[in-house]
Amino acid sequence: MNKKDLIQQIFEKKSLLCVGLDSDIEKVPRYVYGNVYEFNRRIIDATIDLAIAYKINTAFYEVRGSKGWEDMKKTIDYIRSLSPNTFIIADAKRGDIGNTSLQYAHAFLSPTTLNVDAITVSPYMGVDSVQPFYNFPEKWVIILALTSNKGAQDFQLLSCADGKYLFEHILEKASSWGTPDNTMFVVGATQAKYLSLVRKIVPNHFLLIPGIGAQGGDLEAVLENVLDKNNALVLINISRSIIFSTQEKDFAQQARANAIKMVNEMRKIMFK
Amino acid sequence: MNKKDLIQQIFEKKSLLCVGLDSDIEKVPRYVYGNVYEFNRRIIDATIDLAIAYKINTAFYEVRGSKGWEDMKKTIDYIRSLSPNTFIIADAKRGDIGNTSLQYAHAFLSPTTLNVDAITVSPYMGVDSVQPFYNFPEKWVIILALTSNKGAQDFQLLSCADGKYLFEHILEKASSWGTPDNTMFVVGATQAKYLSLVRKIVPNHFLLIPGIGAQGGDLEAVLENVLDKNNALVLINISRSIIFSTQEKDFAQQARANAIKMVNEMRKIMFK
Repeated sequence: MNKKDLIQQIFEKKSLLCVGLDSDIEKVPRYVYGNVYEFNRRIIDATIDLAIAYKINTAFYEVRGSKGWEDMKKTIDYIRSLSPNTFIIADAKRGDIGNTSLQYAHAFLSPTTLNVDAITVSPYMGVDSVQPFYNFPEKWVIILALTSNKGAQDFQLLSCADGKYLFEHILEKASSWGTPDNTMFVVGATQAKYLSLVRKIVPNHFLLIPGIGAQGGDLEAVLENVLDKNNALVLINISRSIIFSTQEKDFAQQARANAIKMVNEMRKIMFK
Repeated sequence: MNKKDLIQQIFEKKSLLCVGLDSDIEKVPRYVYGNVYEFNRRIIDATIDLAIAYKINTAFYEVRGSKGWEDMKKTIDYIRSLSPNTFIIADAKRGDIGNTSLQYAHAFLSPTTLNVDAITVSPYMGVDSVQPFYNFPEKWVIILALTSNKGAQDFQLLSCADGKYLFEHILEKASSWGTPDNTMFVVGATQAKYLSLVRKIVPNHFLLIPGIGAQGGDLEAVLENVLDKNNALVLINISRSIIFSTQEKDFAQQARANAIKMVNEMRKIMFK
């Protein structure tokens, strides 16, 4: 999907919501009998008109081996069958030497494999570890910049010799590897004090923002700093506090209710 | 496997060799009819008495979806069945927020899943992204420090405000997350000029060293800088230049011949 189409989806649906399918088999309600694909299907059915994107957290599928990988593929195919314009992200945080990254890129972005729209990648190994992910037209590379977790302090917020933080170098350098038409950055909602600095360095890039909800980030504070009212350029990922709203039989309706609540907050700020 | 047992294996076999199973289905000789597991089996049979470790590069399996994941599992089980003391590494370069890293840790290290001895992880997200991998007794966490590729220059060799390179901070901080009994670091053989600095910072840790062979690193220069003659503390990974020695019918024997050549070079330096 290209940038123009993604922005159009956002304005049509009046939403910035990315639903994170961190579908932990230990947490899916008993009403789906441990069937992660069935759980995903019901969550997707209940949220597809509200969500701009779904983000598949690969860890929760890999932990179940080849069966989990099958569920990942079926989930992606199901989203595509319902709505070809919904943006699908593999949150895989891959990155390796060039010949290996090329295999990861094929595994996720190729039309004959999972065929998602975007994959998250780690920048630690530098340009040749990320470049192979750009080989696929209309696909996106989402690069970790400043993450939502406590450990972001360990290295991402290290001061470099020129006085900049490491994450500033990442944004500056990595934004030259692709373009705002095929590159996004991950910036955690919990990093409120750095968000305006991030936006200054990459004014035209989409930001994928996790950390609202279970991790405690504040939506209004986030959007105030990074939202482009003409182009949005933001996807807000919410996982646990939507998909695991309740363990009861009406889990999908409750997920929908929580998604509506979040989208209404977005609408108050972005689409008033 | 604990550190003492690993060192014992090294001295018994007189080898530092880790064979990288980067088993690209496009490159396996036609004599195995596109069967990656069969290819691995033949390579393993031909090298098991020479190899201390095998390193499964997950990208080459994921690219074939659930079938690839099955081949990964079967390969690991095959190595275990032949030789329970051979060290098995999943070269997966994972790392995410805590609850997600815990899923990756289970996916690779748990007795009920792939059950490898070690997994490579990316340190970019800091302490809480790596800590969950330490939950499994006698398993190892192998942290990227200074990688063998050109892009290592982009960030790993950035100068920090205190004059140190980023990779030095990684080594200093990450070495406190675990111990030399459960932590190794990845340092590329192509980074010859930094190897003695690495060894100074982590004198007691095993180093997993890729980059010999196809990537051009020099074995003698590497070992001169990082080898501990009493404890070894080095695993030398070689992938393509062993496993893809030839496309001919005798590919396994040729792989063995190349493995012997490498091990003989190691013996000249380490075990003379």
